[in-house]
Amino acid sequence: MNNNETIKPYVIGLDLGGTNSVFGSVDARGNIKNTVTVKTGGFETAEDYVATCVAALRPMIDELGGIDTVKAMGIGAPNGNYYQGTIEYAPNLPWAHDKVVPLAAMFSEALGIPVALTNDANAAAIGEMTYGVARGMKNFIMLTLGTGVGSGIVIDGKLLYGSNGFAGELGHVIMRRENGRLCGCGRKGCLEAYCSATGVARTAREWLATTTRPSALRALIPEEITSFHVSRAAEQGDGLAQDVYSFTGRMLGQACADFAAFSAPEAFIFFGGMTQAGELLMKPVRDSYREEVSPLFRDAAFLVSGLDGSSAAVLGASAVGWDI
Amino acid sequence: MNNNETIKPYVIGLDLGGTNSVFGSVDARGNIKNTVTVKTGGFETAEDYVATCVAALRPMIDELGGIDTVKAMGIGAPNGNYYQGTIEYAPNLPWAHDKVVPLAAMFSEALGIPVALTNDANAAAIGEMTYGVARGMKNFIMLTLGTGVGSGIVIDGKLLYGSNGFAGELGHVIMRRENGRLCGCGRKGCLEAYCSATGVARTAREWLATTTRPSALRALIPEEITSFHVSRAAEQGDGLAQDVYSFTGRMLGQACADFAAFSAPEAFIFFGGMTQAGELLMKPVRDSYREEVSPLFRDAAFLVSGLDGSSAAVLGASAVGWDI
Repeated sequence: MNNNETIKPYVIGLDLGGTNSVFGSVDARGNIKNTVTVKTGGFETAEDYVATCVAALRPMIDELGGIDTVKAMGIGAPNGNYYQGTIEYAPNLPWAHDKVVPLAAMFSEALGIPVALTNDANAAAIGEMTYGVARGMKNFIMLTLGTGVGSGIVIDGKLLYGSNGFAGELGHVIMRRENGRLCGCGRKGCLEAYCSATGVARTAREWLATTTRPSALRALIPEEITSFHVSRAAEQGDGLAQDVYSFTGRMLGQACADFAAFSAPEAFIFFGGMTQAGELLMKPVRDSYREEVSPLFRDAAFLVSGLDGSSAAVLGASAVGWDI
Repeated sequence: MNNNETIKPYVIGLDLGGTNSVFGSVDARGNIKNTVTVKTGGFETAEDYVATCVAALRPMIDELGGIDTVKAMGIGAPNGNYYQGTIEYAPNLPWAHDKVVPLAAMFSEALGIPVALTNDANAAAIGEMTYGVARGMKNFIMLTLGTGVGSGIVIDGKLLYGSNGFAGELGHVIMRRENGRLCGCGRKGCLEAYCSATGVARTAREWLATTTRPSALRALIPEEITSFHVSRAAEQGDGLAQDVYSFTGRMLGQACADFAAFSAPEAFIFFGGMTQAGELLMKPVRDSYREEVSPLFRDAAFLVSGLDGSSAAVLGASAVGWDI
């Protein structure tokens, strides 16, 4: 390092979710020193959002020793475009649902440091590669299973962005070409319509409505059933709920078999709320993958994220900042 | 260049097919100077095959000015593994159908030059990027439509090999999860079972057997129908034959829509015998892609290989050699 350069031991990571924006100051070893949270909604403009965030960040930055100790900021956000540093038409963000917001440039100008932005699933993949179970891996696919299904694809140690920054939308490959479920994206039969947390709840509601099978879930108001209810019922031995997870996991395994034919990854890594179902989900994933995949790709590993759920997204976002 | 180094203006490309092995000496501008052809079958061992090839190459090498004018050799071969330089369990090669043959090392030792080997679809993609319509492209997917369906995927200007050298087996993603056709790979519903030349003939035979629709193809013995018969009938206005191509093209377009969600390519490039059907095939490909793809990927171009069919495979193979 040049002697004239100040050592900058921290990066600020921002996990920008529909409800909360969590900022964390992170050192190079992945220790989160401090966090601060701002409510994401409730702003009419992106300018207001950024101004409030920057004000909230000041005490954290002072505690680090000033902005000169901060190398960069990394943001993981829904509908984030790495090439452009923008958030584009993000349905759950009131100040970005109908426009392209140059969020990286806005934070960079306000803070005086470089800022990189990527979509949330890509940030999770980078975080996993930097701090998690993917350390040392060069080729893997991260699948984030939450309200939707996101993905981050790593090829030769680098995140895949493709020609326009939107590569890795694996939640929107088609798994049912006939009578497929309507997906939030407006198309039919997408993986996300079945294998997200909302997809699991939807499968349970469908099966309750179209069969007479007994199930503890019948005690609930159908519209209020969540994937959490289904996994809890399954753990308590409810056959219908167990079959919902088996159906979901098997479809994920089939999807992974196709993904393997694309990039021959050494591992699939699962991340997000739905992974709390554990083996209930992962066993049918592995089983159907091994049954259906070409022998060329049979050796891929199936892993669940090793990062602590609450800080993983912040670490992932910060890792984007270290790469600037 | 170091003055002690000899200028080596040629690479030898080998297009290793099930019937013929075509060698060409190629200069850096993609001019094929000479070719020599050896029958691929008819050898009991890989050693015999290599010995015969090397003997056949001697006059060509002498004409170039000796082996010192040859930088390297590049091989495109079925079931070729770039990382290992091997051909592995290639069903159509008598001397490699039941084993792993270290073909690159064998030619390298016999000729005294570096030898690189990759699978035939990858070689086509590299050839297209070096000499064809993909010049200057950084992200594209090459689909080779012949007896089977092969693919070569280029990411950031480099061919995708994945963790084990077998990335890009897109002929074996599943397009029909229920009642799918048996594929040559032993699995069911693969893209290749429908969208290869043999798939086209199979679709025609199925429709002739299960419907009473009139068709000029009914004059032929069903087992003898090829994709060529179907395309000729379609061009002459045969409705059933036209619908076979529409069905085939639409499925290819659907598959491309899923591939786009993976790597966001700027173009899909089609190569191989089936592309001779021209717009009969390509129009339904484009139409169904645009109807079914996520708006994020709608701009991808659909191109047909610009390389002369007879020399494209040799040029593709030679391009692998230039990269050593």
